Amino acid sequence: MIKAAIVGYGNIGRYVLEAIEASGDMKCVGIVRRNPDGEQPAELAGYEVKSALSALSKKPDVAILATPTRSVEKYALEALALGISTVDSFDIHTSIWDLRTTLDKAAKETGAVSIISAGWDPGSDSVIRTLLQACAPKGLTYTNFGPGMSMGHTVAVKAIEGVKGALSMTIPLGTSIHRRMVYVELKDGYTLEEVAAKIKADPYFASDETHVVQVEDVNEVIDMGHGVNLTRKGVSGKTQNQLFEFDMKINNPALTGQVLVSAARAALRQQPGAYTLPEIPVMDLLEGDRETLIRHLV
Amino acid sequence: MIKAAIVGYGNIGRYVLEAIEASGDMKCVGIVRRNPDGEQPAELAGYEVKSALSALSKKPDVAILATPTRSVEKYALEALALGISTVDSFDIHTSIWDLRTTLDKAAKETGAVSIISAGWDPGSDSVIRTLLQACAPKGLTYTNFGPGMSMGHTVAVKAIEGVKGALSMTIPLGTSIHRRMVYVELKDGYTLEEVAAKIKADPYFASDETHVVQVEDVNEVIDMGHGVNLTRKGVSGKTQNQLFEFDMKINNPALTGQVLVSAARAALRQQPGAYTLPEIPVMDLLEGDRETLIRHLV
Repeated sequence: MIKAAIVGYGNIGRYVLEAIEASGDMKCVGIVRRNPDGEQPAELAGYEVKSALSALSKKPDVAILATPTRSVEKYALEALALGISTVDSFDIHTSIWDLRTTLDKAAKETGAVSIISAGWDPGSDSVIRTLLQACAPKGLTYTNFGPGMSMGHTVAVKAIEGVKGALSMTIPLGTSIHRRMVYVELKDGYTLEEVAAKIKADPYFASDETHVVQVEDVNEVIDMGHGVNLTRKGVSGKTQNQLFEFDMKINNPALTGQVLVSAARAALRQQPGAYTLPEIPVMDLLEGDRETLIRHLV
Repeated sequence: MIKAAIVGYGNIGRYVLEAIEASGDMKCVGIVRRNPDGEQPAELAGYEVKSALSALSKKPDVAILATPTRSVEKYALEALALGISTVDSFDIHTSIWDLRTTLDKAAKETGAVSIISAGWDPGSDSVIRTLLQACAPKGLTYTNFGPGMSMGHTVAVKAIEGVKGALSMTIPLGTSIHRRMVYVELKDGYTLEEVAAKIKADPYFASDETHVVQVEDVNEVIDMGHGVNLTRKGVSGKTQNQLFEFDMKINNPALTGQVLVSAARAALRQQPGAYTLPEIPVMDLLEGDRETLIRHLV
């Protein structure tokens, strides 16, 4: 059995635990939380909860980082220094290469593996984009998200001063252009105007059409369903008009949690270093005997 | 530049050559044909055409097998014995594991690599099926082909005694069930009845609803467009109703040729042995600098 620890236990962490429990080859040896001595959710009753990986009584093979994206590097470096492999769903596309460079060095120093940006976008969508470019090397790919709640964008809004609750919805306008509809509950003493200005200045929102709407209770409008429509029209060899389309309608944190758990399994099958999801064999993500999988899936 | 040879120059071979010519990191160092001294197609004017890989003046790094599926093993073993890596689009799903076992041994003996079943199904579709199983480990995947011309089935019909020309169309009936519509031009002295019986007994057709129709001129009905609709409905962790769909409408031999060429590039980046497409990193299929690709695609 693969020994996995979960670092951070918010929305994603809960779904990571469910995916571990649903697997047949992995068990959770502990959860790392900032306040391990406080009251814990009922489902953690049977699990060891500590403030650091080094405090767990069983050393995990792999740490699944379910922290906010901006804390990923810090927690990954801590785990890798202990020789514990990591997976994360770091989702700032422009910083992925830098994170990979930093964690590659750290992982190789202790013979560990780090699989980064292993959610669904970046993550499984990245695998599809890469595969479709191999199928039609010239052409255009468009990734259209939503309508759906963006976890990363919602967390970014929540971090802004004056915001009590938030929901950032992604609305696809086609050809990879999106509108951000941000629903906010404000803390006393803050105005919509000042909060909206800060949201629009955040790197998560700066390049998209963004509308900020004040609501009474953000919980009334939250639904974690999400979707993607990814298209490529391109050229295979010298043959034009090759058409590809990938669509999904999914519970967002549930898919992120599952991809993280599948990537945790794959981490233990790679040579030391850091990888993005398209850099590892997709077969390594799966539980089970190689012959049976190949007979069934290839 | 990667030195590639093409073994077999029928429908697929022509598209393989186009994909090599369209690439920026690969050149064709020769074509292997049964009758190298006969008249050659105009586009082969600048290329060395020989009867065996060993007769080419430049030793290729990789041999792209564009032979009928049933000759793949023979030609792959010849190439691997010379230390030349191979790729093929072997498409008899039930025999893939056996071919992989045989070629894995042969490849390791000379330090070469063999990537097998690297067309689009098996091939790129296999990567999608594997990825979707990692995204939702429990559930059902359906691969629905067509409407379109099946190359493998058409070649199988052409090999049957009494058949002058053939077209096997795959018609999707949903939930991975297909009808085969076979259009045949008969040689003199053969009846539709006897030829139809032989077609229906062939392993390619035995498990599908098959209709055989006689036509005057098979060239009047051939169109090499094809399609796939691949769906998975499944469970991520403990969350039901995760919905995935992949669709493509493509020129069949052009996509097969392109995937073979992309796989040829990847072959030179693997450890010795035999692999199916889901067993190699999809990133290895692509031309270009790793950092640029990751920044662009992940």
